[in-house]
Amino acid sequence: MVNIAVLGYGTVGSGVVEVINTNHEIVNKRAGQEIHIKYVLDLRDFPGDPVTEILTHDFNDILTDDDVKVVVEVMGGVEPAYTFVKKCLLAGKSVATSNKELVAAHGPELLSIAKENAVNFLFEASAGGGIPIVRPLNSSITADDITGITGILNGTTNYILTKMSNEGADYDTVLKQAQELGYAERNPEADVEGGDACRKIAILTSIAFGKHLDYARIHTEGITKITAEDFKYAKSMNATIKLLGTTKNVGGTLYSFVAPMMLPNTNPLYGIDDVFNGILVHGNVVDDIMFYGRGAGKLPTASAVVSDVVDAVKHMGTNIMTIWDDEALEMGDFADLTNRFFVRVSGGSEMKEKIEEIFGKVQFITTHEVAGELAFITENMTEAAFDTKKKEFEYVINVIRVAF
Amino acid sequence: MVNIAVLGYGTVGSGVVEVINTNHEIVNKRAGQEIHIKYVLDLRDFPGDPVTEILTHDFNDILTDDDVKVVVEVMGGVEPAYTFVKKCLLAGKSVATSNKELVAAHGPELLSIAKENAVNFLFEASAGGGIPIVRPLNSSITADDITGITGILNGTTNYILTKMSNEGADYDTVLKQAQELGYAERNPEADVEGGDACRKIAILTSIAFGKHLDYARIHTEGITKITAEDFKYAKSMNATIKLLGTTKNVGGTLYSFVAPMMLPNTNPLYGIDDVFNGILVHGNVVDDIMFYGRGAGKLPTASAVVSDVVDAVKHMGTNIMTIWDDEALEMGDFADLTNRFFVRVSGGSEMKEKIEEIFGKVQFITTHEVAGELAFITENMTEAAFDTKKKEFEYVINVIRVAF
Repeated sequence: MVNIAVLGYGTVGSGVVEVINTNHEIVNKRAGQEIHIKYVLDLRDFPGDPVTEILTHDFNDILTDDDVKVVVEVMGGVEPAYTFVKKCLLAGKSVATSNKELVAAHGPELLSIAKENAVNFLFEASAGGGIPIVRPLNSSITADDITGITGILNGTTNYILTKMSNEGADYDTVLKQAQELGYAERNPEADVEGGDACRKIAILTSIAFGKHLDYARIHTEGITKITAEDFKYAKSMNATIKLLGTTKNVGGTLYSFVAPMMLPNTNPLYGIDDVFNGILVHGNVVDDIMFYGRGAGKLPTASAVVSDVVDAVKHMGTNIMTIWDDEALEMGDFADLTNRFFVRVSGGSEMKEKIEEIFGKVQFITTHEVAGELAFITENMTEAAFDTKKKEFEYVINVIRVAF
Repeated sequence: MVNIAVLGYGTVGSGVVEVINTNHEIVNKRAGQEIHIKYVLDLRDFPGDPVTEILTHDFNDILTDDDVKVVVEVMGGVEPAYTFVKKCLLAGKSVATSNKELVAAHGPELLSIAKENAVNFLFEASAGGGIPIVRPLNSSITADDITGITGILNGTTNYILTKMSNEGADYDTVLKQAQELGYAERNPEADVEGGDACRKIAILTSIAFGKHLDYARIHTEGITKITAEDFKYAKSMNATIKLLGTTKNVGGTLYSFVAPMMLPNTNPLYGIDDVFNGILVHGNVVDDIMFYGRGAGKLPTASAVVSDVVDAVKHMGTNIMTIWDDEALEMGDFADLTNRFFVRVSGGSEMKEKIEEIFGKVQFITTHEVAGELAFITENMTEAAFDTKKKEFEYVINVIRVAF
């Protein structure tokens, strides 16, 4: 029997307890021994909940109990999670976490402490929720030189964009609905401004390339400027708009960014709707691989956390090799990345000449559903070049990068 | 440095050599040490190929060389692969194989020998080609009670069905094209009659449920009876036709079968075209997860084989827990499985009464592109019940199960 403790009895924490209780037979079989939850840490009380019997308000109860071999950290946020996790690892306890803020900020240090102490720091749920992606990147896609990762990594924004696409509704209306349904937070900034996706692509990139990509270095744009009109143009091109976190190798230089993009219906990520997430990995020999599933939610996230607990139990006393050095991953300057840009400008056909004068050869896009403006897609150009051109042209309404 | 040997220098074997040579830097880093190919076994000679320097015609050179710690078996077929693999495992060498016939027939025995000898028997490439699915089932989806696996598991048939769908062409025409392009064998039976998909779903099911599913017990139908007309009906319903290997838990009983099915455009497998494969796994807590990628081909398959070599090197001296007992997996009788059936019958509207008399309440499907016949979808009924009804009705042209 292995004793574990759960730090935090919120949505994911109560999900972890539920998954271990519901699936105990199969989980114990796969772990090779019985997994027993000895403590749940939370500052709150939960009168009437069976968790009361194992609830503690004092982290030291867990830290000083040598019987506890695996600790689940599902509190979220950097502190006190960071302090608690570090102490657990130093005390010879493995840790499984769903906390992307913690992993993105302190992943390499915590991995290194785990290694020194012959325990494990596992974080399958921190990127992609229930989707197995961290462990496959770490132990399945090991024969490839990975040349790109691009993913729909945030369920809230994908839900909003899917509703906008299906209903022709505008951003504010859909956000409000999403908030009422509990799919978006009251303060939705971390999701809609791309910060959540940014941390997730930072984690996946670091694992895939073996060095640390600080999320603060990733150019990040959210979905708040996307409009119903943008979707009308997208549809006219058999495309849709998705918020993507992307890292790609262009001629030996890595670039990483988070931004909404126009995706053609031939892209494997095109059909991934609602709260589902999808991550496309490209390797130089395996070509495209895609992983799809629920990127968030109580039980899917808990499923990934418990799979880490199982792995920790199977590897008691042995550190699972994870290559994520503290050394900064060398990245290209975002200004040098080339993209094609979909641009909407106010005005009529008299503007075409001026547009081509500034933006060069472009492909004009028309849809009978939008009037009083022009839209076009540029050729490939650097972000810096596009930025300069955009500043020269005062009529721009909106810009979305194009993945075709 | 770890010495390895490759048994078989055919398509996959030469791919394995190519992947290890091309990606040696990253592969060695992920393995934690240098992987060195000491021998390649093949009965043929390859004049001018650098492999000549390490080529042997004698398996005993490899078996008796204690320096060889990992053996790659990519010869295909049950014998002599089975004898060679067994000897290697007994001699304390780990084995990585892409050989689905071998794994489906002797998986549990070889896993058990590997365990007794503290080595590993790994077979990521045996189901799903380059797609990571065996390792994720074994070590990622460990918190779930798996309730279903369904997959497009054969690239040849998916290529044929995709061409039939896109071009409105008939089966024989497309098969011939596929043979000319090398996507189908001259003797295509193993692919088009479903035998390949059958072995793959047997492997995935055994891993997911921990006991042995003998592939010979799986009801298997191929795609040879699918016609251009069937696709016309499918399109009229926003559906397509895919060859699926399926195992599902219905009320506590497992059923497994391979057959072409009508898939609606809302199914995550709907858009998986050409030689790509996709595997949808459903767990009771994680919900749907899908894995997508190249299910065959020299380099993608070699990528999966080499990832097994890396795993074997990382786990030198330690057996990776794989639950696949020799005990037979308890399965329901295929006759008791319920499905809905799409049925085409010759005749006109005068037949409707007779159809409903025999098949019960049905949903008639019309497309202006097909004349002189009627088509309908039944309610859910057991395979046995449908079979009886079909025998009562002499006008049936074709039948395809429906996944909606």
